[in-house]
Amino acid sequence: MKVQVVKVGGQVAEDPVQLQALLKGFAAMEGPKVLVHGGGREATALAGKLGIPVQMVEGRRITDAATLEVVTMVYAGLVNKRLVAQLQALGVQAIGLCGADGALVRSHKRPPVNGIDYGFVGDVDGVNADLLASLLSSGFVPVVSPLTYDGKGGLLNTNADTIASTVAVALAKRFDVTLTFCFDLEGVLDASGAVIPQIDAASFETLKTTGALTGGILPKITNALAAVKAGVGAVRIAKYDLKNPGTLIQ
Amino acid sequence: MKVQVVKVGGQVAEDPVQLQALLKGFAAMEGPKVLVHGGGREATALAGKLGIPVQMVEGRRITDAATLEVVTMVYAGLVNKRLVAQLQALGVQAIGLCGADGALVRSHKRPPVNGIDYGFVGDVDGVNADLLASLLSSGFVPVVSPLTYDGKGGLLNTNADTIASTVAVALAKRFDVTLTFCFDLEGVLDASGAVIPQIDAASFETLKTTGALTGGILPKITNALAAVKAGVGAVRIAKYDLKNPGTLIQ
Repeated sequence: MKVQVVKVGGQVAEDPVQLQALLKGFAAMEGPKVLVHGGGREATALAGKLGIPVQMVEGRRITDAATLEVVTMVYAGLVNKRLVAQLQALGVQAIGLCGADGALVRSHKRPPVNGIDYGFVGDVDGVNADLLASLLSSGFVPVVSPLTYDGKGGLLNTNADTIASTVAVALAKRFDVTLTFCFDLEGVLDASGAVIPQIDAASFETLKTTGALTGGILPKITNALAAVKAGVGAVRIAKYDLKNPGTLIQ
Repeated sequence: MKVQVVKVGGQVAEDPVQLQALLKGFAAMEGPKVLVHGGGREATALAGKLGIPVQMVEGRRITDAATLEVVTMVYAGLVNKRLVAQLQALGVQAIGLCGADGALVRSHKRPPVNGIDYGFVGDVDGVNADLLASLLSSGFVPVVSPLTYDGKGGLLNTNADTIASTVAVALAKRFDVTLTFCFDLEGVLDASGAVIPQIDAASFETLKTTGALTGGILPKITNALAAVKAGVGAVRIAKYDLKNPGTLIQ
């Protein structure tokens, strides 16, 4: 069975026009599928309104107790249920889950890294693939928010890209999985702005050494190749409307 | 099959000591079960911090767009996921849902009543009992937050007692259902403070006409008798630790 896992970033989820395009594209995808979302910008906005300082280190949110409440409300409440309701209206039997629901994504609190205490941030230990498989086989479409469960009654904040990769890898043990990261470009672009249709481990080395690819896209491709190595059939980097194949990494 | 539906009010859910007692009592209940919760006090607290005015009419919250966001964050996010995580730690395979998840509870926007526009408030149209039955048969324990789905991509705010009754009535079409409303007293008390062990339609009339029962408990008993008439096996009004039988209404 083929299963699609799609990760949508906060930037798309928070722009009504982009979100509608994503939801329509996602609804049109055939077969079993899972949507994983972020919501960092709205969490930052709510924290601001509540006077809770936002501290980021290399793109990761330092999560104190007050911030954990904010991300729980925004990710598992506001963003997740808005996506679920809008997908339902498009005929998708969406069901929203966070990592604590059915112990879907278990994690442990990250120990301090280089002297930085990330607070209530979780590093993933495992995924309840039985629960996902059961929901998919019943025709449900899990919509997953980036909170994980610490096994001791607590929630932890976990990067949504990580959740998407981990869920895809766990499902790849029993299904043929394609993982799509969607954002506002048509894919990975070369220096001329054209989409690179395919990247594999060998061509990635060439693209890096020639300097054709630089910056923030490099870790994304590295992570995609790791997911492929761990069993995911293919990783796609594509535009949020999901109309074009984008860049296939395998 | 016997199914227990338990409704816990915001007052219990928001007091750590009472909440622990409730969760232990609920975890100890045998067989398939559903927990329905409120969260009004925390919603009021968050609205206050955000400077969103709270308007209540006869205990019902007037829900404008900003308030709908607040209750979505508090009910489906903060309160629901906290309950789910804590139940997981007690060995309960909890899975948190709002009315939009799997179109669990469908509703329509309430038209103005006596000139009062309640805003984004939903009157329930139906329950997806198939979804609940499927989860229960797989050993999951649904934890339901009081938001409903309008069938058009939107969420609506619905009273949690109403959700509990409606879910219990829907499940009663296929299971032997007991619905428990738990709060901070041991049950329905008579004038001397003793628990009245049983109430039925006939004895309720007597209790009303003799003035033995007055005030806010009357509509609760009226609703309980309506649920029994609609097929629920019994309604219990009991203390949140769920240790004693409380008052049985049938």
